[in-house]
Amino acid sequence: MEKDTLDPWGTSSIKDYSRLQSEFGIAPVAPLVSRFRNPSPHIRRGIDFGQRDLGRVLDAVDNNKPYAIMSGIKPDGAFHLGNKMTADDMVYFQSLSKKATVFYAIADVEAYADNGLSFAETAKTAIRNVADILALGLDPDHAVAYKQSEEMRVMRMSTIFSRGVTNNMLRAIYGERQIGLYLSALVQAGDILMPQLPDLGGPKPVLVPVGADQDPHIRLSRDLADRYHSEFGFVPPSAIYHRLEFALTGGYKMSKRVPESGFTLDDTPTEASKRVRAAFTGGRDTTEEQRRLGGRADICPVYDLYQFHFARDDEHVKRVYNECTKGIRLCGECKQEAAGLVKSFLEAHHRNRDSMMREAKELMAKSRSYLTSTGK
Amino acid sequence: MEKDTLDPWGTSSIKDYSRLQSEFGIAPVAPLVSRFRNPSPHIRRGIDFGQRDLGRVLDAVDNNKPYAIMSGIKPDGAFHLGNKMTADDMVYFQSLSKKATVFYAIADVEAYADNGLSFAETAKTAIRNVADILALGLDPDHAVAYKQSEEMRVMRMSTIFSRGVTNNMLRAIYGERQIGLYLSALVQAGDILMPQLPDLGGPKPVLVPVGADQDPHIRLSRDLADRYHSEFGFVPPSAIYHRLEFALTGGYKMSKRVPESGFTLDDTPTEASKRVRAAFTGGRDTTEEQRRLGGRADICPVYDLYQFHFARDDEHVKRVYNECTKGIRLCGECKQEAAGLVKSFLEAHHRNRDSMMREAKELMAKSRSYLTSTGK
Repeated sequence: MEKDTLDPWGTSSIKDYSRLQSEFGIAPVAPLVSRFRNPSPHIRRGIDFGQRDLGRVLDAVDNNKPYAIMSGIKPDGAFHLGNKMTADDMVYFQSLSKKATVFYAIADVEAYADNGLSFAETAKTAIRNVADILALGLDPDHAVAYKQSEEMRVMRMSTIFSRGVTNNMLRAIYGERQIGLYLSALVQAGDILMPQLPDLGGPKPVLVPVGADQDPHIRLSRDLADRYHSEFGFVPPSAIYHRLEFALTGGYKMSKRVPESGFTLDDTPTEASKRVRAAFTGGRDTTEEQRRLGGRADICPVYDLYQFHFARDDEHVKRVYNECTKGIRLCGECKQEAAGLVKSFLEAHHRNRDSMMREAKELMAKSRSYLTSTGK
Repeated sequence: MEKDTLDPWGTSSIKDYSRLQSEFGIAPVAPLVSRFRNPSPHIRRGIDFGQRDLGRVLDAVDNNKPYAIMSGIKPDGAFHLGNKMTADDMVYFQSLSKKATVFYAIADVEAYADNGLSFAETAKTAIRNVADILALGLDPDHAVAYKQSEEMRVMRMSTIFSRGVTNNMLRAIYGERQIGLYLSALVQAGDILMPQLPDLGGPKPVLVPVGADQDPHIRLSRDLADRYHSEFGFVPPSAIYHRLEFALTGGYKMSKRVPESGFTLDDTPTEASKRVRAAFTGGRDTTEEQRRLGGRADICPVYDLYQFHFARDDEHVKRVYNECTKGIRLCGECKQEAAGLVKSFLEAHHRNRDSMMREAKELMAKSRSYLTSTGK
């Protein structure tokens, strides 16, 4: 049996999410679902399938204690569907309590190092990206957004952490990698642990919503939280893991590096819906076969569009699944419907986002002045 | 024949400085001595024995073009004799032209990561360290001093560089090391190349005065300058290498980690001169032998004190050497004289330094406002 790999920088193939529990110690979300008053679509539909110490965050919600949600983006282009996945979770967990604070890291130093994008360019992209998350529902009154290039805390912590890790520890988590990737992992650990620094309110539960392939970063951060517990009092960060979307071009993972494998929230509604209509599906070779055997929704990126993002409600998802697998719905009509949903979503999102540009700038400015005022 | 090792983090043993030329490509200083109008004591006495591209800096002096001198200190304690060596070179090369700018890095992030020293503690040490270099003759009007914890440029560059180096390249230069040391090497490369950034005047010759054991850092910076030449226009940094002082306790290298191996500019004149009187020497087992065979000045840390730091002039150095090696001078009287010189130096230095504390604070403040005003 082929072993699953979790590679935050490559193409992860995860064929059996339940196996991640025994292999990597990711616990299932299912036993905790009853603790949510209004579980999100991702949770209800099992898209958020795994977690580590999610209970700690739910305890904070129940007891009205402060907690943080940490996420971020590399501002190397438009917001893509994977970013939306994470943003949806971030917004949902922020909405559970007035004691929640979102920390949103804009990895402009990495965008420069990896993609040669100047800070001037990425500053513009960052504002758009922040407007995207505001349009997706982020509450700016309980959020801090910062650029890596302006936040010494993260750099300081990655330097500190670099002394506390051994090459063996990094190799065990990530495999043999170039030092640039190890350093980038330490910087991410700095981002993840930053909300617990004394000048930002001190130790607290921190939830990191991520794709399953990012688990190595979570393990490193948790290791470091333990290692530096006596010095900083870190609570090991919690994580919630979402499944990876199948690529529209076929294959296991949508990737920013393969634009045709998905679309971005910057694409025009027409472009994006065209890409959906051209997508690979879980359909059969002939109409006759499909009517007889049913489609394979479980490996279909178009079905993923419904369940991950664009279905109107759970009933809608269920109906699509049943019609597909029973051979009632054919791929052409199914893609047509999905394309329509994508088109409507993007039209509305573009309007929302455009109206959020000023709020995005304000959030960046407000965050900057907060972070510099509390810094040493 | 045992191979010399150059280990910036360990105990380097260098038995034959001339071999560093063939083994590592460090060129001799001697052929360039005629280009100096008033060569410094270190240059006249061959203590600055090696160089890379020193000619490029001398060209800048001759043609009245801008150049920089880059050095720094980890503010983990008092200024020791090795810091003084480097500072003397820094001050001398600054004095050669009004177009020179000293960049002085205070590695407080490293002091925190390695020694657990808080920024509040190291901020105080840093001011004293800067007062030390002012007392040693630094011209504050042509100098910029910065803390790593406040200078994003260095952190940004080390991130960029981390993508441009391969593990093989780092292993070839430093041997197999823990990632923390590799990262610290990349941060030092950031310090060394920072004076050439566009907002700090752009590409220019930069001289780094260092102990021979620091050559790996110079090689890495020069490799990176080449690798990023097309992007930043970097000129490969130049270096001048000084010999390592023998430890007062015997052995090849004075080290901050072994306090008894030297003394610091914070020690009281009494303590320091006591340590000198107790020093290991190149003397013979008996007075009779010493009279007959002469002392071994070439392996004597007390002779090093004369030639590296405290002799009144070259004549004085020569006289000590001749009297020692001819058996005229015995170790007791020689140490007595050295102890007196050390005592007088420290008394004067303490007076000078105490009077420089305000200037030190001003230099830090002026530098900070310059660096933030030019930064993006």
